[in-house]
Amino acid sequence: MAKFTLLVHGGAGDVSAGPTARQRERKSRLVLKQALLCGYRVLKMGGTAIDAVVAAVKVLEDSPLFNAARGSVLTHRGGVEMDAAVMDGKTLSAGAVAGVRKIKNPIEAAVAVMRCCQGVLLAGEGAEQFAAEQGLKIVKQTYFITAGRRRQLQRIRNSHTMQLDHDSGTDHPAEDTELGTVGAVALDQYGNLAAGTSTGGLVNKRFGRIGDSPIIGAGTYADNGSVAVSATGTGESFIRSVCAHEIAARVKYCGFSVGRAATEVTKTVIPALGGRGGVIALDHAGRFAMPYVTRGMYRGLIRSNGQSQVWVFD
Amino acid sequence: MAKFTLLVHGGAGDVSAGPTARQRERKSRLVLKQALLCGYRVLKMGGTAIDAVVAAVKVLEDSPLFNAARGSVLTHRGGVEMDAAVMDGKTLSAGAVAGVRKIKNPIEAAVAVMRCCQGVLLAGEGAEQFAAEQGLKIVKQTYFITAGRRRQLQRIRNSHTMQLDHDSGTDHPAEDTELGTVGAVALDQYGNLAAGTSTGGLVNKRFGRIGDSPIIGAGTYADNGSVAVSATGTGESFIRSVCAHEIAARVKYCGFSVGRAATEVTKTVIPALGGRGGVIALDHAGRFAMPYVTRGMYRGLIRSNGQSQVWVFD
Repeated sequence: MAKFTLLVHGGAGDVSAGPTARQRERKSRLVLKQALLCGYRVLKMGGTAIDAVVAAVKVLEDSPLFNAARGSVLTHRGGVEMDAAVMDGKTLSAGAVAGVRKIKNPIEAAVAVMRCCQGVLLAGEGAEQFAAEQGLKIVKQTYFITAGRRRQLQRIRNSHTMQLDHDSGTDHPAEDTELGTVGAVALDQYGNLAAGTSTGGLVNKRFGRIGDSPIIGAGTYADNGSVAVSATGTGESFIRSVCAHEIAARVKYCGFSVGRAATEVTKTVIPALGGRGGVIALDHAGRFAMPYVTRGMYRGLIRSNGQSQVWVFD
Repeated sequence: MAKFTLLVHGGAGDVSAGPTARQRERKSRLVLKQALLCGYRVLKMGGTAIDAVVAAVKVLEDSPLFNAARGSVLTHRGGVEMDAAVMDGKTLSAGAVAGVRKIKNPIEAAVAVMRCCQGVLLAGEGAEQFAAEQGLKIVKQTYFITAGRRRQLQRIRNSHTMQLDHDSGTDHPAEDTELGTVGAVALDQYGNLAAGTSTGGLVNKRFGRIGDSPIIGAGTYADNGSVAVSATGTGESFIRSVCAHEIAARVKYCGFSVGRAATEVTKTVIPALGGRGGVIALDHAGRFAMPYVTRGMYRGLIRSNGQSQVWVFD
């Protein structure tokens, strides 16, 4: 039987263990499973790694439980500004959008950018205009904004800080600490890798801040010659370390396993820059790693035999 | 005597050799020399690599001859949308702005982002607001737009293409083929590397397209442990190859010289992705490379002994 593998993540952070959080955790696990199954169906039917990544990420974008598309965290001004990227490990083609406010599924816009060759990274209103011309669904901001996100922003708006979505802090109720950035990496039956990431960024972000998710090499990267990576965490340290490409380089040039490369970068390089978070990484043989340096990380795996697993803690 | 090195570039492209182009070439060489001297003074007085990079890039931004700040190429809509980034090789701190329209010196905004820790990459109006709050000079679009750029846009507006600024094509008069993206890399007397890049992007660009210049790891990268790089060319292939970080990885993990790493990536990896352009790269020992795969590349070098050189062709 043709072999393939799909990994997804729904963000890393100080996932709370309280009773309300437990309920949310159960729901989130179900959505992760759905995402895995959606991607699995694509791969099972002979679809490509890119198509599986997009299918899985779309499920997570459409859920209000994660910080991507619907359910995105709110900016300082109370709106959403979303980023997404995809990369095809076979051709090294890539597409990304940043700071978009109206595209229902930013991951689809990223794919459209990749396929239309109108640049690799499109931002803001220009990206929205492009998405609309491509026939992608444009929605109002209200579609994305949930009551939980409004409360979350209110809580920290006056603190003048930005924070990882999934960090509640010990003094805050866990009920509105919805989960983080989402992403997927896949290896299809043709031996091709792909990666995709979608995010609402940091709560209370200002000044048109763009994180690592739409930056090829930082939060998203795929190369059949090394690995596919999707990252989540404090984006700035992931940009400065060129995180995903650094993992790929250690695999390609140092001969490290995907496990060693991903773990070193996540647990040593990123913290040395003051950052934290996690990554999912997958190589051409289906070997994978999901290291993180937060209390928990929402993540899951499905193989060609249809067996899936979802984890939040170790 | 304390040793230091500064490299600058003013873009790569099919630099014409006609008589009008010659005159422009002479003027551009003078500006490159001025940029080198400005950075040299900073380094001579004990300034840091970052300060020298910014001083040199500012000279090139202020000149209408290059495609950065004043003299930027025009977008499809006839305005400017500028990108810039800096990176400090000592701390791996970085700052960048993308799609800004009113900041007189985008490179200064990039440094302000780096120093204020408000993210690494800020885009659009948010970045402009940040720059204004930091006291940076905000100007009207008319400041940036030159008559030559208007003619250049008019010529290719209906072609529905984007092009490298410095590519005139053989059927076009050379008079308005002003030069490209600008950048600098420096090694200061303390042994620290830095890199900076500033650009107006591609002529006739649409949809909020962001190129490689403001992407850490793509068009701009610096790490004392490997190299400092500033790139110029078809940005998409530089993003997809994570060009600057790829050069750094080959130096760091393969043990390649800066010359070998930069040349391989510029002359093999980038063209394999359908791209072209050039890079300037400098290592911690002051060894450097300036490979390009276009007809010419505006570039220059100055050492601590005060001797400078400027090249356009080989």
